[in-house]
Order: sequence, then structure tokens, then C-alpha cells
Amino acid sequence: MATHKLLLLPGDGIGVEVMAEVKRVIDWLDRRGVASFAIEEDLVGGAAYDSCGQPISEEAMAKAFAADAILLGAVGGTKWANVPYEDRPEAGLLRLRKDLQLFANLRPAVCYPALADASSLKRELVEGLDVLIVRELTGGVYFGEPKTITDLSDGQKRAVDTQVYESYEIERIARVAFELARTRRNKVVSTEKHNVMKTGLLWKQVVSEVHGSAYEDVHLEHQLADSCGMQLVRAPKQFDVIVTDNLFGDILSDVAAMLTGSLGMLPSASLGGVEELSGRRRALYEPVHGAAPDIAGKGLANPIAMIGSLAMALRYSFGELEAADRIEAAIAGVLAGGVRTADIYSEGKTRVGTSGMGDAILAEL
Amino acid sequence: MATHKLLLLPGDGIGVEVMAEVKRVIDWLDRRGVASFAIEEDLVGGAAYDSCGQPISEEAMAKAFAADAILLGAVGGTKWANVPYEDRPEAGLLRLRKDLQLFANLRPAVCYPALADASSLKRELVEGLDVLIVRELTGGVYFGEPKTITDLSDGQKRAVDTQVYESYEIERIARVAFELARTRRNKVVSTEKHNVMKTGLLWKQVVSEVHGSAYEDVHLEHQLADSCGMQLVRAPKQFDVIVTDNLFGDILSDVAAMLTGSLGMLPSASLGGVEELSGRRRALYEPVHGAAPDIAGKGLANPIAMIGSLAMALRYSFGELEAADRIEAAIAGVLAGGVRTADIYSEGKTRVGTSGMGDAILAEL
Ligand SMILES: CC(C)[C@H](C(=O)O)[C@@H](O)C(=O)O
Ligand SMILES: CC(C)[C@H](C(=O)O)[C@@H](O)C(=O)O
Repeated sequence: MATHKLLLLPGDGIGVEVMAEVKRVIDWLDRRGVASFAIEEDLVGGAAYDSCGQPISEEAMAKAFAADAILLGAVGGTKWANVPYEDRPEAGLLRLRKDLQLFANLRPAVCYPALADASSLKRELVEGLDVLIVRELTGGVYFGEPKTITDLSDGQKRAVDTQVYESYEIERIARVAFELARTRRNKVVSTEKHNVMKTGLLWKQVVSEVHGSAYEDVHLEHQLADSCGMQLVRAPKQFDVIVTDNLFGDILSDVAAMLTGSLGMLPSASLGGVEELSGRRRALYEPVHGAAPDIAGKGLANPIAMIGSLAMALRYSFGELEAADRIEAAIAGVLAGGVRTADIYSEGKTRVGTSGMGDAILAEL
Repeated sequence: MATHKLLLLPGDGIGVEVMAEVKRVIDWLDRRGVASFAIEEDLVGGAAYDSCGQPISEEAMAKAFAADAILLGAVGGTKWANVPYEDRPEAGLLRLRKDLQLFANLRPAVCYPALADASSLKRELVEGLDVLIVRELTGGVYFGEPKTITDLSDGQKRAVDTQVYESYEIERIARVAFELARTRRNKVVSTEKHNVMKTGLLWKQVVSEVHGSAYEDVHLEHQLADSCGMQLVRAPKQFDVIVTDNLFGDILSDVAAMLTGSLGMLPSASLGGVEELSGRRRALYEPVHGAAPDIAGKGLANPIAMIGSLAMALRYSFGELEAADRIEAAIAGVLAGGVRTADIYSEGKTRVGTSGMGDAILAEL
């Protein structure tokens, strides 16, 4: 049995708490011989800054390059509001994404039947919802230069961010979206603002070209980003795969996530290209939710998104489909049995904390 | 009685149809002596392009500068998908916003009690909803340079958009938000992505400074744009005024609009500075909805957003508060009476087309 090199980066806030629960699941899989792991662990985000003055150390980066996959908890927190911009917690995560070239961020928004009532939306609009947002993750306004604040005369300041996309970046993310759509319901909505942005214009052109060149069997629709945001609220079940840029993907995936009832439920995968020499695909898995400093340390966080992220790693990085299915079935089973953390609690259900949810999932496994 | 110089720019698609209804309301106000108007009319968007090869003519721009206020229908449509980028229908609207320096776009998202059931959200989450989005409208990625697509070697292309904000642009929109909050529930949420954007960092700093300098009585909260999108779906009634940049404002206002049940309901105002010589504040009023080419020409469009935009013009540009109240009361009355266009129709109500809704509102006046 292959041993999977897994790097754990708990990060900040509730990242630490949810990582503790996923470790128990990893141990369980290892002890039962379901899958075998070699685990490394390191710091990222504010925790790394506090320890070494950088949001991710060079050793941690080396471990990330050596790992088969990375599980990350969350980064950020008000504690680091005043550290220099280059050293803020988020910079550690952004460096991982960029240096490992994790260009394809997969964010499924799935509404578990047991949780349809937890959504803000009417049950019939979200029951059975299964949208996959494919977000470009290494380009756009997140990384374009110049990115500056300069002092003008008379105390005024001028800030600049630059959104840059080259055709190849759009091509490769479009391919990921079309390939994934073929394994699902065969529909892609591509979303941008071509009516006001040149990057949107190029985005739309390149996605159409990729579609015409090899994916005409997939249904493609273009929606403006504002309109897509609206449609996500109006009729979310119209969507199968949504492909979009880094910034729109950030906002639209949070909106989509919320439709399912709780951000605490949703895992994500960030995939890189396949390396020519090793045949290995770099990948990082993390919950869609953040570090939530307001509830950190209280044992209230929902570890399902983190444990679901392990399931995604088993599926996409390790080819351990059975183990992945097993974890996902355990999560669904626990929810069907009425166990709930605070974020998804409703009357009549059994309320548990972070480790209580971990217990329940282990018991169900 | 002062005569108000009003320029009507119906534009494209359903813009033409909804403008026809607002004209009937203007006539009515004029004939009854409630308010007095001198009306000009011209083309904008695709209609202008078809007639003169430009999305807005120089004569129309001159009329816009001479007017006390402008009512605009909508611009855009698939028909003009292949016109040069600089001449696309949207460029006419963007030129009006920029040249008239209409930097403050007010987008109220109000849930009419009679329509609470038309929302995708559960009734208790939207009943009584009254959010005002204050969107910066003349800066950011919409207008920053460079904004280019260049050919690289090997057939690759590179697209660039630039988001630029100077402190004064943030200051003046922040002031508008705080002033408006004082007339409402005294709460402002400022939203940006300071964790990844330098413009977001400057935005947050300047809004905090403006707050500290003169508006400490107003409650101020900062939310990241992704998180704000999520909160709009989770618990929209937490918001009073949201102030944000041009691009985030575009998306978040469409999401907020959709919470109320229909985009066809919502007016907007785009206000400029007060001119020193004339004491006049430039302003343009338009529905939040677009040209909707799919339903254009069918007499199905809801004219309420357009007629509501006239009410906003009466209130903000002309100081005709009574006439504004009267129109808004007529709209509420018609809705309470069960008259509905297709976009807000539900069982048991009376279904009407565009002019039927116009008739009903005139009858109620
Ligand atoms: C933490 C932050 C840098 C990040 C982003 O903006 O990408 C987060 O919001 C996300 O969606 O993963
Ligand atoms: C038509 C388009 C240019 C415009 C925008 O993006 O600002 C529209 O979406 C809006 O919200 O007014």
C-alpha cells in the first residue's frame, strides 16, 4: 500500500481546532489499514508570523513542495491587523497557492438533504443543490503588478491593484471546468464582466475558443458576474459548474456556500498542473470558511468542512476513492442522525461541539 | 413653480418600454400642476450607436450637462456583441457617469411587504428589509488605466485592467454614506478586500479616518467583500447602509436587489458633487435592472423600477418631496391591491403587462 505524504498546516483560529479532528480521522484510516500516511506538520499564517516573523517559513515551503498533498485549516485574525502588509497571515496562504501553481480551486456547494432547512433560501430552491465553482487561483488582481500605495502631494494617497490574465491561464482553467462538467451534468457557466473589463473580454473569448476546440458536447453559457450573483440567489439549481476568475470566484463561492446553510460544511481543493517528471499533481485542501477569530478556542467550530477536505484529498490526490466515499458517507450519516454543531443547529437536533462532531463521525466510520 | 429640466434617455431593450410608462406619469404630474417639467429626449447605448455610430452623441452629452436630472432606461443587448469595445452600448452609460462625475450611486434594496413571498429567502429574513448600497461609481477598475489586450508571441494574449483609488475619491463617497446613514438607522458597513488588495487597504483606512473625523456617532463596521456577500444571504436585515467600490458594488447590489424578490422593482440614483457656481447637483436616475433583450418588445417588463427612479429624481434633484411620496405611495398601493407584472407574479394575483402596470399606477395616483 502506498504511503501518502501529507502536510498539515492548521494555521490560525478555528483552523487549529478543526485540524485536531481531521487528525483523528487520519489516525483511524491509518490504524485500520484503509490508507497509509506519512504526516508532517508546520505553521502558516499568523501562527507562523508569531514564531518566525514570516507568514510561512522556508522550511514549511520545502515541506509543501515535498508533500503529495497539503491540508490547511485557516489563516487570519484581528490579532495581526497591524503587521506589515507583506507579512499578514493571508500572505502565507497566497504564497502557497502561487509558488505551488495551484491554479484550479474547486469549491463544491452541496446542500445535504438533512440540512435543507438551515438555508436562508426556501427549501424547494436548494434541495438537491449541487454546484461546483471552479475558481482561477493564481492570477488576476490577487497577484498582478503594480500593487501599490503611493503618497501624492497634499497628503493624498493613490492605491493601485492590477488584474492581469494571459490566455494560457484562462485556457487551463477552462479545460478543468469542461472536464469536470463531463463527470457531472455537462453544463458550464462562465462568468466575468466583459462589458467593463478587458480581462473579462479575453476570458470570454478564450473560454469560447476552448469550448469550440474540444468541448462542444458540454453546454456553455456566459453570464455577467453581477447577473450570476443574482441568479445564484434567484434559482441556484440552474447551475452545474461555474468557472470564473480569482476575485469573482472569491465572492461568488461565498454566496454559493451560504446557500447550503453553513459555510462550516464546505471543503475545497486547489489543484496545480501535473508535473512532467513525477506525474504528480500538486494539491492543497482547505475548508471554504475562514479562521473565525470570534469563535476560536471555544470548541464550537464545525469540523465537517475540514474532514470533507481530507475526503477530497483522498479522491483527487491519492486515488483512494473507497476511503473518500466512506468519509463522505459518515458525514452524511451523522447529519441524517441529527447531530449538529452550533452553525447548523436547529430545534430538536443533538447539539455538539467540535470534538463531539469528531466523535460522531469516527463512530459512524 | 420651478420648471425642472429633465433629459430622458430610454436606451435599449426594455428601457424603451419602461420609459414610455414613466412619461405618462410625468405628463400626469405636469397636467395636474403637481410639478412642472421641460423634457428633452435622446438616444444612448446600442440605439445611439445604430443612429450615429457612437454609444452617445455629443449633442446628447450637451443635453446631459444642461439638464437638472437625467432618467435613463437601460443599455446593452446581444445585438451589439460585435461592435468595437470602445463603442459598445455600456460605454455610453459609463461616459455619462464619468463625464458628469456621478460618483455616488445609491441603490436601495427595499422589500415591499406585499412582495415578501416573491423573495427566494424565507419571509422572516426579508420582511421589512431596507438596505441602501452606496456604490462608488466613477473610479476603480471601471476606469483605471492601463486597460488593454496585447498580443504576445506564440498567439498568446495578455489582458490588463487597473483598479485605482485616490484618497479623495474614497473620502467623498464615505461622507455620502455616513450622511445618509444619519437619516436612516445610523449604521454603515464598509466592504473591500484589504487582505489582498492595496485599494482595499486604502479604502479601509480612509473610511476609518472619515469616520473618526466627523461621524463617530454613526456605527461603522468593516466586512470583507466575500464575507459581506455571504452575510447578505445569511442575515440581510443586519445591514443599513453598505458603502463599497465600483466593482464590488456592482455585484453586491445585484445580490441585494434579488433578495427583495425582483430586480424589476428597484430604482437607483447616481449623484455628482454640488457645482460651486450653480449650486446644482448633477444626477442620473435609472433602474438597477438591465436591458433584458430576452423579454424586450413583448410588453412584459416591470416599469416600477423606472417609475421609482422618477420618484428618486423628484426627491434628490428637485426637492419635490410631496410628489415623490405620492408616486411611492401609488406603487405600494398598486402592489397591495394585488397587481403584478410577470417577474413578481404569484398565484391569485392580477397579472398585467408593462402598460397595464402603468395604468394601475396612474389610476392609484
Ligand atoms: C484568506 C483570503 C486571502 C482568501 C481569498 O481571498 O482568496 C479567502 O477569502 C478564500 O476565499 O480562500
Ligand atoms: C451596464 C453595466 C456597465 C453596469 C455596470 O457594470 O455598472 C450595470 O451592471 C450596472 O450595475 O449599472
